[in-house]
Amino acid sequence: MSTSNLPESMRTSVLVGVKNLTIEDRKLPAYGTDEVLVKIAAVGVCGSDVHYFRHGRIGDFVVDGPLVLGHEVSGTIVAVGDSVDPSRVGQRVAIEPQRPCGKCRECRAGLYNLCPHMEFYATPPIDGAFAEYAVIQDAFAHAIPDNLTDEAAALLEPLSVAITTMRKAHVVPGSSVLIAGAGPIGIICAQTAKAFGAAEVIVTDLVAEKRERALKYGATRVIDPVEVDIANEGLDVNAFIDASGSPRAVTAGIKAVRPAGHVVLVGLGNPEMTLPVEHIQNYEINVTGIFRYTDTWPAAIHLVSSGLVELDSLVTGRFGLDQAEEALESDQDPASLKSVVYPSK
Amino acid sequence: MSTSNLPESMRTSVLVGVKNLTIEDRKLPAYGTDEVLVKIAAVGVCGSDVHYFRHGRIGDFVVDGPLVLGHEVSGTIVAVGDSVDPSRVGQRVAIEPQRPCGKCRECRAGLYNLCPHMEFYATPPIDGAFAEYAVIQDAFAHAIPDNLTDEAAALLEPLSVAITTMRKAHVVPGSSVLIAGAGPIGIICAQTAKAFGAAEVIVTDLVAEKRERALKYGATRVIDPVEVDIANEGLDVNAFIDASGSPRAVTAGIKAVRPAGHVVLVGLGNPEMTLPVEHIQNYEINVTGIFRYTDTWPAAIHLVSSGLVELDSLVTGRFGLDQAEEALESDQDPASLKSVVYPSK
Amino acid sequence: MSTSNLPESMRTSVLVGVKNLTIEDRKLPAYGTDEVLVKIAAVGVCGSDVHYFRHGRIGDFVVDGPLVLGHEVSGTIVAVGDSVDPSRVGQRVAIEPQRPCGKCRECRAGLYNLCPHMEFYATPPIDGAFAEYAVIQDAFAHAIPDNLTDEAAALLEPLSVAITTMRKAHVVPGSSVLIAGAGPIGIICAQTAKAFGAAEVIVTDLVAEKRERALKYGATRVIDPVEVDIANEGLDVNAFIDASGSPRAVTAGIKAVRPAGHVVLVGLGNPEMTLPVEHIQNYEINVTGIFRYTDTWPAAIHLVSSGLVELDSLVTGRFGLDQAEEALESDQDPASLKSVVYPSK
Amino acid sequence: MSTSNLPESMRTSVLVGVKNLTIEDRKLPAYGTDEVLVKIAAVGVCGSDVHYFRHGRIGDFVVDGPLVLGHEVSGTIVAVGDSVDPSRVGQRVAIEPQRPCGKCRECRAGLYNLCPHMEFYATPPIDGAFAEYAVIQDAFAHAIPDNLTDEAAALLEPLSVAITTMRKAHVVPGSSVLIAGAGPIGIICAQTAKAFGAAEVIVTDLVAEKRERALKYGATRVIDPVEVDIANEGLDVNAFIDASGSPRAVTAGIKAVRPAGHVVLVGLGNPEMTLPVEHIQNYEINVTGIFRYTDTWPAAIHLVSSGLVELDSLVTGRFGLDQAEEALESDQDPASLKSVVYPSK
Repeated sequence: MSTSNLPESMRTSVLVGVKNLTIEDRKLPAYGTDEVLVKIAAVGVCGSDVHYFRHGRIGDFVVDGPLVLGHEVSGTIVAVGDSVDPSRVGQRVAIEPQRPCGKCRECRAGLYNLCPHMEFYATPPIDGAFAEYAVIQDAFAHAIPDNLTDEAAALLEPLSVAITTMRKAHVVPGSSVLIAGAGPIGIICAQTAKAFGAAEVIVTDLVAEKRERALKYGATRVIDPVEVDIANEGLDVNAFIDASGSPRAVTAGIKAVRPAGHVVLVGLGNPEMTLPVEHIQNYEINVTGIFRYTDTWPAAIHLVSSGLVELDSLVTGRFGLDQAEEALESDQDPASLKSVVYPSK
Repeated sequence: MSTSNLPESMRTSVLVGVKNLTIEDRKLPAYGTDEVLVKIAAVGVCGSDVHYFRHGRIGDFVVDGPLVLGHEVSGTIVAVGDSVDPSRVGQRVAIEPQRPCGKCRECRAGLYNLCPHMEFYATPPIDGAFAEYAVIQDAFAHAIPDNLTDEAAALLEPLSVAITTMRKAHVVPGSSVLIAGAGPIGIICAQTAKAFGAAEVIVTDLVAEKRERALKYGATRVIDPVEVDIANEGLDVNAFIDASGSPRAVTAGIKAVRPAGHVVLVGLGNPEMTLPVEHIQNYEINVTGIFRYTDTWPAAIHLVSSGLVELDSLVTGRFGLDQAEEALESDQDPASLKSVVYPSK
Repeated sequence: MSTSNLPESMRTSVLVGVKNLTIEDRKLPAYGTDEVLVKIAAVGVCGSDVHYFRHGRIGDFVVDGPLVLGHEVSGTIVAVGDSVDPSRVGQRVAIEPQRPCGKCRECRAGLYNLCPHMEFYATPPIDGAFAEYAVIQDAFAHAIPDNLTDEAAALLEPLSVAITTMRKAHVVPGSSVLIAGAGPIGIICAQTAKAFGAAEVIVTDLVAEKRERALKYGATRVIDPVEVDIANEGLDVNAFIDASGSPRAVTAGIKAVRPAGHVVLVGLGNPEMTLPVEHIQNYEINVTGIFRYTDTWPAAIHLVSSGLVELDSLVTGRFGLDQAEEALESDQDPASLKSVVYPSK
Repeated sequence: MSTSNLPESMRTSVLVGVKNLTIEDRKLPAYGTDEVLVKIAAVGVCGSDVHYFRHGRIGDFVVDGPLVLGHEVSGTIVAVGDSVDPSRVGQRVAIEPQRPCGKCRECRAGLYNLCPHMEFYATPPIDGAFAEYAVIQDAFAHAIPDNLTDEAAALLEPLSVAITTMRKAHVVPGSSVLIAGAGPIGIICAQTAKAFGAAEVIVTDLVAEKRERALKYGATRVIDPVEVDIANEGLDVNAFIDASGSPRAVTAGIKAVRPAGHVVLVGLGNPEMTLPVEHIQNYEINVTGIFRYTDTWPAAIHLVSSGLVELDSLVTGRFGLDQAEEALESDQDPASLKSVVYPSK
């Protein structure tokens, strides 16, 4: 492909130490035959970006060199590799920010999110998209329709988390779902549960304002878990989704599930947690967690494009690349829900 | 049905207090139109019988009146209700010791083991089968072939636990399975895993003799968990089955499972247990427990009848009804594996 | 329950021969301890009612005595059996018109629709609901909210067919679905596919007016199968639903499904049909049919109550009990979609 | 890798026209970085090889250039690509003869057998293994234990067909299975059904000798379909597997399946077949076919290595590369079951 009108270098925000971001001029990344080069439009800030920024690690993933953050990404294809359809140049896309090996046992089984050779944006040592350009494999650059904004397209990534959660929670039309935590993931899960046909979407949060907000995003009922004993309220839900990481919420939530129901642990908390094992046994509750996603972008695009899920209003802060640090610190403001960085503005 | 040659009363071993069994003469139980009356041949002693005997309760199930123990049962049909095929009289049967309501949400969904109206043998206030006769619904008295002994027929009940476990653990031909605990359930699970086609059946136990025994019952490898770090041995199994109730074994076992693998908690331990939640999330491990069984007797009969599972040699103690207390105390002997009571001898 | 204010008899429309309906005064049906007596509000006319009326049989089901038609039913509980919550009297309900045995192999497995002892409304020799009153088991009388009309409540029955179809077709958010036939079932399937989150709902029909109508009921695209070669149009759908019974539509539809996709045959046609077996093999297409439903009313009530499915406007004819024959013949009018009989008016 | 001791060329049997095989000296195939070079030990002759040999095509797959047949293959790794573990040289392997793209929608979903870009041995224009050497990707060369013969290792390929069939037929311990046709696939399916725990394996065939043979390979009962009306014999099986391709057998078999049971069409017959659709609908029978396999070699190796399936005795003819034509024609002899070609002898 002709790339004659592309610049030689790009501005990039690089994490060079704990709470230490710097802007660098880097060469545009090279793209392989099955890859596309994307000019980045919008990048959502995720809790994991914030965690790397503040702590330099997440569990076993340690930042031991310069790292570019950002994995909730939209943009426009500006160049494609030799085996990619050249008509894709100019296409607006949402990026599924992972590159599985395609050959291992997990990939062959369709579990590519669990590929042990995964290269995932903004996960050391793989760079993310706080930059003007990024590269992704053809199949992981998902074309988006005109009625999706750049922000919404970036936020298809957390929506993909929610879609994976609904699948694992077996949410279907008529389901009742309990969600603990009304942060960004809880809010998107509430909307997505509704879009999956849930008849009841009960959201708990300790903060009144967050509960209020949940009512605007799909919740059919909100509960203050300090006032109501969730475990014994007779909720009898089909599924419990934890988006809080709170052991107390998890234990109560598990006990609110009906026999043979499903529990999906999405929120990150301590590596270990005390769970009501006897209850899990006596009611054959199914407990699992999620780790990223497979094959969610097409569904996510439909949900947003059709209006079943609305993401734009989640954006409470907008930042240039120079303001990446500010974007990462914006969660200090309780009114903040989702910050977005615009590397090309 | 003519029941002219049946006695009017039967000898029954009744738990009348903690560690207090007495023999009573009771009237034969009445049987409904869809029920059969069974002359009991053999009754296996289960850990739950022992627990009721020693502690008068299991969790929320409290013995607050006289209770007949025993729910692993075989015998011969001696009378049938009006809507039952009269040719069943004389048939040797294994009893599935449960009576679900058949009408509730769980029953209608095929989850009859989770029926909230369940009447289960030897679970307060429902009597079990430490008696000469017992009643069960027609469909829950499973005809057995001649090549099954009375003991084996009684032990189809713990085998049903193992079959349910294999189903929930998704054990299929070629699977690798880790089992913690080489007591009766661990041993039967090991055999059943093999019968389900598992290629690897790894059994852990702290006791050398128990590990040795496991090798005779399906284990392809045994490990002393004190010597080997199960969590980091690279076992990479498809499924982990806990038959130990030990938190340490459970945590290690969960970490030995491959991505998207299955964990089934069968062993009873504390009501709460600390689990490696981050690991469950990062590898999308599926954790559940089992509570009894549905539709297992036909498969159980096949496994034993065809020789894929061998139960007779598990019996290490044989007792008359008068010796029920001795049978319940026999687990004090480390060499004891399974005691059987013969109410009609 | 006191039933003092109930009449002794009720007006009933009885099929006494092919195309021969008569009004009889019959005693009110007796209700058992677990049953409720319902005063009928509305009864939808189904193609099977019409078929019994015109031909006196459907396959192996032969009308060889007087038969009351009607199995799409709503009403109000006016009396309940001894084991039913008496506060249900006065409740508006939709009737799930089946009585499975609750004990057989299929019932125990949760497949109660396939119970060999099923007693189903308006299926010989079981009477239906073209009458002022009818009896149903407590659990099969589903309470409905105020925002459902009597007509809509009756039409939860065909909606249940559609819900079962979506489940078997594995329709989930983002799915693409092809539906052949825009009659009542095709139309309700189109709406239900949309409600299940389908991104594409393609409906084919030979009649332009029916295609137009489909666009109002969930279809995102309609195709005239005479003009477009469905098998080779590259539709690549996740699921194909036949609601036409036409062999030609079925063969084309199967070929429009993507690898490992699903085909559900809902429409009734000839007992035998020529299918593209090599194609089914080469693409591992899953083909099945549906027979009634299990556990659909709660989901159906949610879909209508929340506005995801709209049933009222499907009703094109309204009839009293005296006009039952007219109602059954109304399908002669091409503009007719759904007729409803009001036995109590 | 050093390949210094490898020859420059290899003897290859090439199909150059209908019924026209010739031996050529060809250059050894080049292997990529993720591939291994295998010295071929044994190659089973499959019906599809015979069909290409006799007719030059199978459905849409047309032989329009020279083609090397043979896709049931075992051998020894003699060289490996740069990214492959060099210690694999010298390893005996069974070849899974397919190369999916690893990137398309089907591959990402774990359905790599349905990859539209598949390169499959002996399927035009991809060469097979009637040659001294062949190349395959690392992950598709499955190490085999010493107790597998070269023949058995080659025949893991048809065993993989049988394993896929059992999975799709949902055969589990205790299942009852009906198999139509006692040719090579029917015989291997019978053994595999037994190995998957089936309690009943009923095999039908028109030929008495074949029925007799089936009894040695897992069948628990054999039936002459001319004498017994399979559709109405009350077989009530969980699954029906067609390995005959006969429309009559398929129709009868479908009617022998219990409600909600499974039908897997393995045998190749006409592209279209008349099926009992009304029966499929009324009993919600699930009908599908299979196309090759995914992730079967590990299970296949276990089944043979553990003695659950025995393949060696299926081999009724052994041939050198020069005798490939004879091998392909050996099915003319009714006593022939499986022919094997040894390219390196």
